[in-house]
Amino acid sequence: MPANAYDQLCDHVREVSLLTSTESTLSWDQETYMPAKALAFRARQMSWLSGKAHAQATGRMMQKLLVQASESKLNDAKQAANVRVMTEEHERNAKIPNRLVIEESELTAHAKHAWVEARKKSDFSGFAPHLEKLLGIARRKADLWGYADEPYDALLHTYERGTRTREVAALFSKLKPELTEIARAAVARGKRVKPNLLRGNYPVAKQQQLNAEIAASIGFDFEAGRIDTTAHPFCTTLGPRDIRLTTRYDEKDFTSSLFGVLHESGHGLYEQGLPEDDFGLPSGRACSLGIHESQSRLWENHVGRSTSFWQKWLPRAAEIFPNLRKIKLEDFMATINRSEYSFIRVEADEATYDLHILLRFEIERRMVNGDLPVADVPEAWNALFTEMFGMTPPDAAHGCLQDIHWSMGGLGYFATYTLGNLNAAQLFATARKQKRIAAGIEKADYAPLLAWLRNNVHSLGGATLPGDIMQHATGKATDARHHLKHLRERFVG
Amino acid sequence: MPANAYDQLCDHVREVSLLTSTESTLSWDQETYMPAKALAFRARQMSWLSGKAHAQATGRMMQKLLVQASESKLNDAKQAANVRVMTEEHERNAKIPNRLVIEESELTAHAKHAWVEARKKSDFSGFAPHLEKLLGIARRKADLWGYADEPYDALLHTYERGTRTREVAALFSKLKPELTEIARAAVARGKRVKPNLLRGNYPVAKQQQLNAEIAASIGFDFEAGRIDTTAHPFCTTLGPRDIRLTTRYDEKDFTSSLFGVLHESGHGLYEQGLPEDDFGLPSGRACSLGIHESQSRLWENHVGRSTSFWQKWLPRAAEIFPNLRKIKLEDFMATINRSEYSFIRVEADEATYDLHILLRFEIERRMVNGDLPVADVPEAWNALFTEMFGMTPPDAAHGCLQDIHWSMGGLGYFATYTLGNLNAAQLFATARKQKRIAAGIEKADYAPLLAWLRNNVHSLGGATLPGDIMQHATGKATDARHHLKHLRERFVG
Repeated sequence: MPANAYDQLCDHVREVSLLTSTESTLSWDQETYMPAKALAFRARQMSWLSGKAHAQATGRMMQKLLVQASESKLNDAKQAANVRVMTEEHERNAKIPNRLVIEESELTAHAKHAWVEARKKSDFSGFAPHLEKLLGIARRKADLWGYADEPYDALLHTYERGTRTREVAALFSKLKPELTEIARAAVARGKRVKPNLLRGNYPVAKQQQLNAEIAASIGFDFEAGRIDTTAHPFCTTLGPRDIRLTTRYDEKDFTSSLFGVLHESGHGLYEQGLPEDDFGLPSGRACSLGIHESQSRLWENHVGRSTSFWQKWLPRAAEIFPNLRKIKLEDFMATINRSEYSFIRVEADEATYDLHILLRFEIERRMVNGDLPVADVPEAWNALFTEMFGMTPPDAAHGCLQDIHWSMGGLGYFATYTLGNLNAAQLFATARKQKRIAAGIEKADYAPLLAWLRNNVHSLGGATLPGDIMQHATGKATDARHHLKHLRERFVG
Repeated sequence: MPANAYDQLCDHVREVSLLTSTESTLSWDQETYMPAKALAFRARQMSWLSGKAHAQATGRMMQKLLVQASESKLNDAKQAANVRVMTEEHERNAKIPNRLVIEESELTAHAKHAWVEARKKSDFSGFAPHLEKLLGIARRKADLWGYADEPYDALLHTYERGTRTREVAALFSKLKPELTEIARAAVARGKRVKPNLLRGNYPVAKQQQLNAEIAASIGFDFEAGRIDTTAHPFCTTLGPRDIRLTTRYDEKDFTSSLFGVLHESGHGLYEQGLPEDDFGLPSGRACSLGIHESQSRLWENHVGRSTSFWQKWLPRAAEIFPNLRKIKLEDFMATINRSEYSFIRVEADEATYDLHILLRFEIERRMVNGDLPVADVPEAWNALFTEMFGMTPPDAAHGCLQDIHWSMGGLGYFATYTLGNLNAAQLFATARKQKRIAAGIEKADYAPLLAWLRNNVHSLGGATLPGDIMQHATGKATDARHHLKHLRERFVG
């Protein structure tokens, strides 16, 4: 047993992160700038990297280093946690054959492209064969990984370690009536608000200027990140000091790109706040998507859709966009928090958003568990949507083709959005109990809030479970009442 | 001997190209979009890829596959040429230890950054230690590779296979008096041309629009490439259908970005015209930098600075930029072909350009061969510049710090610019002997010219020597008289 067994293990695992982060860079480029005809070769580059990363993460050397580190004397709890998580992940990774990893990577590059085309034409049949294949891979992986109750457990674990499908299902069942009632009341109130108050002419360059000012003001470090344009906003990490956000622009409505940027900046602040020196190790990465989404939703909704935020930023926005000058803060707030039923999740307001998630969770769970054939997805989606929202998607683009996730092989992902909403409300409520933080929020100075998040969430990294982070930061497990209270106050009260 | 030994070899070599093209993608991102703090991690990613690619290109498997392929029956001359070039390159690569490749890659990422900073401050001492290290690596590589006459031979071979330093030196010595005389006459004539005729206000977005129209019109495929913005224009290949050009913008002068785009489009057309299915093999890549540069200079200078080109494009440019409307074609042509002595190579006009190259070749050769210590480079540069141009660089930024090449480890590179100029003139003169091509050129229709270049240069790939390409396309080895004739006609005649 060499004295530095732990360091050797870390070096090896960091090398894996060189490969996975390189793949993320290629993927970022594919979404932002890559020309169309480059796709086939790009898919080959990425599947090579996936395969090599997986081989490195599961090979004999990794096994040997893990055993050595487990048997060696570790310095502290962090090292112990890292070894524990690496061991768990190694077990999980080693169950997946290398060729399946390569196959999945190659498939998703093409599936993403097929999805974009299918969505454009609103033609589910163009995407169905890809979804069939990716679902097949997801189910094979679930079988290889094993699961407690149902295949969906194994996939959910990828995004939210330590969370069972039936717990989520029970939580969502309990929430559904209350969320439905809140949405109904919010939409009724929304009908009394003028929908087009902000329609105007907002040149992209000026939107970019305002978005960048705001992102910087809440703490996003542009020397360690940037914002680009994509069809679907996202945040991706290309290195410990390289966080790429994206948004999209509506030249008739500046809030579309801005709330996208606030949301992705929330993700970005989390990534920029992780322990830099631990990049590549469990302790240097985000804990789970439910925690990640808590950060994006906190900044987007609890901060970005609050009156105190716009007390500061509406005057600045009006300097940049003259047509905002005659709009009163009160009317502006009513407009950006106007609720209505809509077909598209990413455009949904806070009061109706979770219903979109509940729907997806149910559809996806049935799909993954083998109770819903791919061919029947559009019909099942539309039926459930009609039941929940009282209106029927006019086509697949407004229904089951709208989300990018499945095309990326991201099955088991959706539930984390609502978990994130619950965590966001709970974290925000806890933080603002501190006078300095509350006082800062009142004058749109978020440095104290960010410092609290850095200390209580970001710096904890990912060698822990999401539940532990919530316990550490708020003294309690995830509890829906904060989110429901927030929604009632904003949309019903 | 398996029947498919050649195919196996090609598969292996194509895998190397997955790695090197991925490294190119990271490098492109570093130059275009990467945030500043991401540098250190990016350097690690790139050196990992360099090391892995080198290991794959020199390992036991490669050796075995090369032997098998050499001993197998090959289908045709192309296969034989590929095996021959791969064998030569393998021999060369195998002489360099893997750790040196990794060291060089890591060094250059940091050296590039140091160069940018040093150039900004015009402080050679900030860059000198990096140059010292890179020069050390270059000389170690030259020693390992071996050379016929002098260390510089080994480096020149990297960029211009089959060319000796003393041949280039002899050629340049012969050219120097004539080029000096042409430059003197051109500059004298340039003094009679108003220098600021085109100064105006050219918004970047509108420059981009015109540049893209022109690049597309000469045949650049934007579905297999794009144009971005960098401090120093370049063209890089990220995949067989993924050619990235860059340029930079001067809002007071639209021709700066446009000639940059024409130049890089020339490189890009060559890359887009290489045999796609052979990507990663010698037959699927560019032959040499002297051939590459012939393509960029042909489109930039022989096409882009000709009267027939602007007969078509000046009216279009004037639609986009109103201040051009009152400018006569004749005055416009005199302005864009106005010659003057200047300190910066990349801004030099055609008539003085080669003098900059002759200077660099001489300085660099002495440096590489050990006759000029790094510390003495600024003084030597300025002395030679003063002798050749009759004026002295005011600082290092306008002298020996101006070029990016050394910071990238690109020692031995500069001579290929003048070789490219000679080849460009010779290829253009040969092509336009054909009536259809000449007629096309007269009306700014370059499809016949491009078709000729595709057939006679691009499709030949790189399993051949630059001299063979010139022979094939023009019936002769590189001959300076075409270039001198062209310069005399344009600048003296």
